[in-house]
Amino acid sequence: MKVDGVPYRTIWLADDGWRVSIIDQNQLPHAFVSIELETVEDAAHAIKEMMVRGAPLIGATGAYGLALALRQDPSNASLIAAYDLLINTRPTAQNLSWALNSVHQGVGALAENDRAFAAYRRAAEICDSDVEMCRSIGKHGALLLSNLWEEKERPLTLNVLTHCNAGWLATVDWGTALAPIYWASDNGVPIHVWVDETRPRNQGASLTAWELCKYGIPHTVIVDNAGGHLMQRGRVDVVLTGTDRTTACGDVCNKVGTYLKALAAHDNAVPFYVALPSPSIDWSITGGSDQIPIEERDSYEVSHISGQTDDGRIETVRLISEESPALNIAFDVTPAKYVSGLITERGICEASSKGLLRLYPERAT
Amino acid sequence: MKVDGVPYRTIWLADDGWRVSIIDQNQLPHAFVSIELETVEDAAHAIKEMMVRGAPLIGATGAYGLALALRQDPSNASLIAAYDLLINTRPTAQNLSWALNSVHQGVGALAENDRAFAAYRRAAEICDSDVEMCRSIGKHGALLLSNLWEEKERPLTLNVLTHCNAGWLATVDWGTALAPIYWASDNGVPIHVWVDETRPRNQGASLTAWELCKYGIPHTVIVDNAGGHLMQRGRVDVVLTGTDRTTACGDVCNKVGTYLKALAAHDNAVPFYVALPSPSIDWSITGGSDQIPIEERDSYEVSHISGQTDDGRIETVRLISEESPALNIAFDVTPAKYVSGLITERGICEASSKGLLRLYPERAT
Repeated sequence: MKVDGVPYRTIWLADDGWRVSIIDQNQLPHAFVSIELETVEDAAHAIKEMMVRGAPLIGATGAYGLALALRQDPSNASLIAAYDLLINTRPTAQNLSWALNSVHQGVGALAENDRAFAAYRRAAEICDSDVEMCRSIGKHGALLLSNLWEEKERPLTLNVLTHCNAGWLATVDWGTALAPIYWASDNGVPIHVWVDETRPRNQGASLTAWELCKYGIPHTVIVDNAGGHLMQRGRVDVVLTGTDRTTACGDVCNKVGTYLKALAAHDNAVPFYVALPSPSIDWSITGGSDQIPIEERDSYEVSHISGQTDDGRIETVRLISEESPALNIAFDVTPAKYVSGLITERGICEASSKGLLRLYPERAT
Repeated sequence: MKVDGVPYRTIWLADDGWRVSIIDQNQLPHAFVSIELETVEDAAHAIKEMMVRGAPLIGATGAYGLALALRQDPSNASLIAAYDLLINTRPTAQNLSWALNSVHQGVGALAENDRAFAAYRRAAEICDSDVEMCRSIGKHGALLLSNLWEEKERPLTLNVLTHCNAGWLATVDWGTALAPIYWASDNGVPIHVWVDETRPRNQGASLTAWELCKYGIPHTVIVDNAGGHLMQRGRVDVVLTGTDRTTACGDVCNKVGTYLKALAAHDNAVPFYVALPSPSIDWSITGGSDQIPIEERDSYEVSHISGQTDDGRIETVRLISEESPALNIAFDVTPAKYVSGLITERGICEASSKGLLRLYPERAT
């Protein structure tokens, strides 16, 4: 994606060939700032504090985190410690364990001297493969949007609602849920996006809206409460979200509040699609989705919020009396029955074990 | 209700017998400040800017607004102008037109000299009657909560989820949805309240949480996105909300986002009750609830938020890039089929025309 005309990925190697550059997403939309990670601790901190977020980008950052650790100390002890540090940063995103395991398996059998280079290479492959998967998701999803637009007899705008950020900033490039929007828009489908602000971290208001601005896609930010009403009034044609982990049965774990939008879509016969690269699929969960660990974050994220004052300062303000406690649950699970379909890099399938196995037959046991 | 030991209503006459005192709810929870309304313009401004809010309190403030206008100028022209000014402050709350019509009908036939006193008297009656209705709602609703607690075999806490503020601050005293909570709590039911923060104006985080603090009711503030997950995990026993307007068929218009919670309650077999004094019922709407005007407020309320800095200053910060537009829809409608029952001052009924007419047979045509 381009920012003010300059092409960017969300994670890239610095000119020295070993430092890892990321965009500090906590500063968006008020400032576009990149920072450099030098150690595995830097990488873990960036994931935990959500300087990088979004399941695919968390995975990519985790992979580079292992590479940074092995550059410093290629021993088994270092590899294990780095793996443990990174895996415990955030519990829900499936892509993190997938990426860490992928690097670990690739380097574990190598001589110590060869490990760092192999890890960097594997991390770069993970990034490139994420870009390719997102591009394919974009292509498959764009066809869906384009067909929907045709079925509705080419309305002046096709209204897509999205929750959280599943765009370029959540992946290495393109995005998951936003990729079909970019692709379809490039191909002449006049899309307007309803952007859920996505409390408490406001990834919709801060990141999705910013991305859509930069790409020139018409959009409107709404509070998370508003989408149901818009669907009741026929102002949403389709809902598109990403996912942090989808089970082998098609249950979708995503940013908290996704489930409420899926219920409203179902109640109003609005199609509800989830876009995901296959590393987001947890093939080990074939039963109850309550096996997915749901991250609970610091209540400070609910009680306080940051923004920009009229004179340009960034301030953090308290929203709740100090006497009131708050709870901060980061994800929820949308049962497969409320999901119209999954948009993967291999095409679109039913949100079910049968649907997923049709696209990924190698996973049949 | 008491604030730091001192009993308060939300609206009262000043010592001079004619100025109207209110609490500036925009300053809560950071400061508890009362201000005096001297003119109908003051009253209209207080309603429009949400210094007072909540359907019953909007009605009471409107009634006193007419009294203030008639004190200044008791002519027909003044009465009509004041009515027009007040009715156009906020379109959704049914209680506003009810209260204005009630005062108008009471004074229209009187000699000019008698109008102001009669209007003050009628406004005071509206307030007293609101308190009585809310007390009754509290009694009927408390029995419901107490029965639910018994049915569940007296769990350590009965978890109630509420949206927006339908407490003391939304009425003259007691509240609608919170009245049963106060009453049941006084009678030994160990209640814990999940408080939806209720974006964009955060009436839950700012007002409901503050009220519950002052009353000593255990509670936890959550983002509006979280309630669905809590219901899926069995952590909500009942949902209780207020309403700004309920149709003769039992469709419930309330703060935007209520509909999403009703859907989640339905999906998880959690009872969903709405508490309302009868002036909130719009008997004229017997068909489609799309006849209810849904207020659209300034997008500034979505793009900006105010709070308190660590050093005690109140700051307003921008949350969204200036390039992104926002839409601010204030209410939505929950279809009667998702409402387990209506808690009125006359008892609890089914959310249907039949249910309402059983309690209000005088409304049968």
